[in-house]
Amino acid sequence: MDNHAPAPTAAVLLIGNELLSGRTQDINLAYIAKRMVAKGIRLQEARMIQDVPEVIINSVNELRARHTYVFTTGGIGPTHDDITADCIAEAFGVSLPIHPEAKARLLAHFKTIGVESNEDRLRMARIPEGASLVDNSVSAAPGFRIHNVFAFAGVPRIMQAMLDSVLPELESGPVLHSVTVISNLGEGAVAAPLRKLQEQYPAVDLGSYPGKVADSFRLSLVARGTDEAQLDQVKIALQQIIVDQGGVVLQD
Amino acid sequence: MDNHAPAPTAAVLLIGNELLSGRTQDINLAYIAKRMVAKGIRLQEARMIQDVPEVIINSVNELRARHTYVFTTGGIGPTHDDITADCIAEAFGVSLPIHPEAKARLLAHFKTIGVESNEDRLRMARIPEGASLVDNSVSAAPGFRIHNVFAFAGVPRIMQAMLDSVLPELESGPVLHSVTVISNLGEGAVAAPLRKLQEQYPAVDLGSYPGKVADSFRLSLVARGTDEAQLDQVKIALQQIIVDQGGVVLQD
Repeated sequence: MDNHAPAPTAAVLLIGNELLSGRTQDINLAYIAKRMVAKGIRLQEARMIQDVPEVIINSVNELRARHTYVFTTGGIGPTHDDITADCIAEAFGVSLPIHPEAKARLLAHFKTIGVESNEDRLRMARIPEGASLVDNSVSAAPGFRIHNVFAFAGVPRIMQAMLDSVLPELESGPVLHSVTVISNLGEGAVAAPLRKLQEQYPAVDLGSYPGKVADSFRLSLVARGTDEAQLDQVKIALQQIIVDQGGVVLQD
Repeated sequence: MDNHAPAPTAAVLLIGNELLSGRTQDINLAYIAKRMVAKGIRLQEARMIQDVPEVIINSVNELRARHTYVFTTGGIGPTHDDITADCIAEAFGVSLPIHPEAKARLLAHFKTIGVESNEDRLRMARIPEGASLVDNSVSAAPGFRIHNVFAFAGVPRIMQAMLDSVLPELESGPVLHSVTVISNLGEGAVAAPLRKLQEQYPAVDLGSYPGKVADSFRLSLVARGTDEAQLDQVKIALQQIIVDQGGVVLQD
């Protein structure tokens, strides 16, 4: 890993009407985000879109041109609304044949759980030409990787297993560490010194996040950067800002 | 409301590095989604993006051209990383002056909670030229509406108050109702009859969502549409599919 090389970037494409109807609360993004942080890959954007072919195809093409990696979740099951593989194949202009190894894994799994194979179940073995399989240790039906695009399941447990199985093949970058200083101050009290501190440390990303903890107001000041020694300095400076403004450092 | 007119559409732009670092689990999208369903507005896409001016400006311009409404969350506080108002003003090519009414509300609020006004706190009174204010019943600092773009706070309690305050001014459309049939079957068992049912009812959106409830596998079949009588028929047909495939209808 070259610390001076730009970090790899990633985008997530969350596919499914149920996310946009409010029926399902997505938890996949946060999981992927944490894995990307640990790997030193910068997750730069995420989109939630409907099961509409044109929208999926355009989004895949837009994001794969812009990022080192694209991860899609959802739409790789056996039902009529599972169209992610079709759309990714179309985005890359390749066919979508039955993949022999994917089929073999499915048939073995069907035998184990005692269900019969049928045309719809075998739809899950259709893999874009040239793609490699992504293991599914939960329910056999594989995801796939084609160039820089990874297609994962939408069910969180399966998505997590799939992502974890491909982590070793992802390029890593300089890890973005973070430090957090929590206080009882309002944002307006710290805005000016925080702005000065940000100017003093341009390589550090300073964020200010108001919120509630057990019904009490709490302000979290978060600094992110690749240089841990510098983050330690910034943390002390943040604590000093709190004290200077008459606040209390509540946790660190 | 004209039942034959196309429904209004919406997009959500969730702004903030903390969403993409995995630090904060967004809950604003699901809240907005539910309100849109009740109002008959079709939420068609959501994006999570970083606090980067160019990205915010381009996203706002892309989405506002495509949808009836755009809702942004985050980035309207007093600190240096709060750049949403600046970016929306730039997207519309307008200035960002102090808004007298916004300033008056802030000063009254500062007096009530006993904090002094300062330059940073008054940044929250900067409102794009031509925008109207969106009430903030929680902490006074207003959001704003400019043409079809609404800028809300990122803190969920404030975002919710802001959205609820503007709901009456949004155009409504034919409400998309939904029915759900839950069973113990796998998706592969129902895929073929489900596909046929979808062809029979093209105006209904049929979705199949596998998941776990209390560690048992559950499949939710969801039908969405504007015609409630038709949805009742579809619900009975879904229950029949479950029974025909040897499954049990677990809840309806």
